[in-house]
Amino acid sequence: MKKIKLAVVPGDGIGVEVVPHALKVLDTVAEMHGGLSFEYEHFDYGCDYYLKHGDMMAADGMDRLRESDSVFLGAVGDASKVPDHISLWGLLLKIRREFELEINVRPAKVFKGIQSPLRNPKDFDLVVVRENSEGEYSSVGGRMYHGDNEIAIQNNVFSKRATKQAMVHAFKLAQSRRRHVTSATKSNGIFHSMPFWDEVFKETAAGYKDIDTVSQHIDALAATFVTHPERYDVIVASNLFGDVLTDIGAGIMGSIGIAPSANLNLNGRHPSMFEPVHGSAPDIVGKGVANPIGQIWTAKLLLDHHGEEEMGSLLLDTMEQVTADGFLTPDVGGDRQTDDVVDELIRRLKT
Amino acid sequence: MKKIKLAVVPGDGIGVEVVPHALKVLDTVAEMHGGLSFEYEHFDYGCDYYLKHGDMMAADGMDRLRESDSVFLGAVGDASKVPDHISLWGLLLKIRREFELEINVRPAKVFKGIQSPLRNPKDFDLVVVRENSEGEYSSVGGRMYHGDNEIAIQNNVFSKRATKQAMVHAFKLAQSRRRHVTSATKSNGIFHSMPFWDEVFKETAAGYKDIDTVSQHIDALAATFVTHPERYDVIVASNLFGDVLTDIGAGIMGSIGIAPSANLNLNGRHPSMFEPVHGSAPDIVGKGVANPIGQIWTAKLLLDHHGEEEMGSLLLDTMEQVTADGFLTPDVGGDRQTDDVVDELIRRLKT
Ligand SMILES: CC(C)[C@H](C(=O)O)[C@@H](O)C(=O)O
Ligand SMILES: CC(C)[C@H](C(=O)O)[C@@H](O)C(=O)O
Repeated sequence: MKKIKLAVVPGDGIGVEVVPHALKVLDTVAEMHGGLSFEYEHFDYGCDYYLKHGDMMAADGMDRLRESDSVFLGAVGDASKVPDHISLWGLLLKIRREFELEINVRPAKVFKGIQSPLRNPKDFDLVVVRENSEGEYSSVGGRMYHGDNEIAIQNNVFSKRATKQAMVHAFKLAQSRRRHVTSATKSNGIFHSMPFWDEVFKETAAGYKDIDTVSQHIDALAATFVTHPERYDVIVASNLFGDVLTDIGAGIMGSIGIAPSANLNLNGRHPSMFEPVHGSAPDIVGKGVANPIGQIWTAKLLLDHHGEEEMGSLLLDTMEQVTADGFLTPDVGGDRQTDDVVDELIRRLKT
Repeated sequence: MKKIKLAVVPGDGIGVEVVPHALKVLDTVAEMHGGLSFEYEHFDYGCDYYLKHGDMMAADGMDRLRESDSVFLGAVGDASKVPDHISLWGLLLKIRREFELEINVRPAKVFKGIQSPLRNPKDFDLVVVRENSEGEYSSVGGRMYHGDNEIAIQNNVFSKRATKQAMVHAFKLAQSRRRHVTSATKSNGIFHSMPFWDEVFKETAAGYKDIDTVSQHIDALAATFVTHPERYDVIVASNLFGDVLTDIGAGIMGSIGIAPSANLNLNGRHPSMFEPVHGSAPDIVGKGVANPIGQIWTAKLLLDHHGEEEMGSLLLDTMEQVTADGFLTPDVGGDRQTDDVVDELIRRLKT
């Protein structure tokens, strides 16, 4: 019997609502599989934990999470309780950094049964590979002077190692897809980091002659995501550019509540972490209407990661049949509760 | 007779095609007005100039441009001739910096007769006020080590002065519109500059109690531009965030070829500069199909800036009648040439 040990961190807001649903789905998948089981350890880290303990996680929190095969996370942050830069850098971004989750993989595609806000969404199916450890997300920098003369300096730090690693990941992924990689750049406006990014892209591309490449500035790229998303296969992007593109990707799918992500550790020293793209959505907490798809699609990425691609595909295909048949939460134009959607998914998986 | 002296810089690619059309339109407006005339001085600065002279503009170029009341620019850059970071920092960004054009104003709205890629584009009408002088566009930083260990450091520099100035401009603009300002932030991921940005926004907002405000992270904001653009009135954004948002704004209007911009000097020491959002579009040069609307709408912003709001409105309204009647270039789904559209506009202005 293959056992996958998950550290479960529901986090804040709707994270706490959708994660248990996704675990029920994972258990159903395991049952169907026969040879697979999940073991869960739950951690109540998040903003409420902070209000009680003055920290987003326990002092030995990282060590305990490290004992798992993967971390399964809901959502982190609730600005009404804890300022975002504290909650995020104390939990979500801390895990990404300390577990060296240097790659963030985020697919977007036309999801059956869910209407895109685009008039004519050609059958797009793309994946953003986001550098997930450095770049614009950096604690290097600071502030100087007070009052009217104050200045803030933010350092973006790009290393050849992490940049190239993200690009190599994108090229390898493209080899199993439509063999096209787009590099998100801004070398016409951003002086040092982006020309560097372009050079590394060119150098990396030279090793993958079988892959077509194009570099596009982030502004034009963001606009083309809206006008012609079908043009993209794999996109490699810096931390910030990837962040923005993947939210647009979620937008053109019809809801941020659908989009999944995998934060991958590549050096084998720490577990990887799986979390949906959406946040904690304090505005809809407690109403039972959170869209569970983001968390469930994220579970599919987790299955893939642990070599269970077949179960992963079955899970996502069944999910799409459920939405195609109209089981939709309000964010995607339906009137179903989170429960209804998940129950229907589980019912279909079981039959 | 009121005379406006324009320094005309068509620049590269389709800039050279659309600028003369826009000047014809301006002359038509002046004729109709009776009391207004334009005087043009043409400058052939751009990538071809660089290939001949090793520089994007003449040594005394800035001084000569400074003699004008406003600069009217087409597009700059053609990577097949000159690397972008050289052409842009040698002309477009140089003018923005040295003429202290610290504010970039970019409207976006449903344009009559032009189909939005959005399925259901509620009647959106928004303006992005972009900080145009600092932030992520900075030459501060550099690179270290060679080969596998190379790192690039890019400094983003935010001053209280320029940040606040952009925000004040946004609040004042909102007072003449729907009294709502959205601040584009990313204080949950970007450690120093964006929390600073938020503080300045809060402080500025305190002086405008009549204006509703909201702060939204750039990723969610970019996605909401696609799903609910009608929620926005005025958005204030950093240099990079404004860059990305305004291309998405162009995207949801139906074409980057439509979007205009005004680069404003606020201290009275230099001329302001007016340029469309689109680039030089080398792929369609010479085909006579460039969309002239971006440059013409930009001319409208120039008229507004020089106190001729009435003529400005007339120009834009007439332009929208022309598109509503189907005079459309290929980028917006038509089969008209640039000429046809402009001739029809001029014909209607004259009758
Ligand atoms: C060409 C480029 C440097 C420029 C910018 O990034 O500002 C353009 O995208 C714009 O928006 O005017
Ligand atoms: C919450 C925030 C720090 C995070 C990010 O910017 O990475 C989120 O937007 C994401 O995309 O996972």
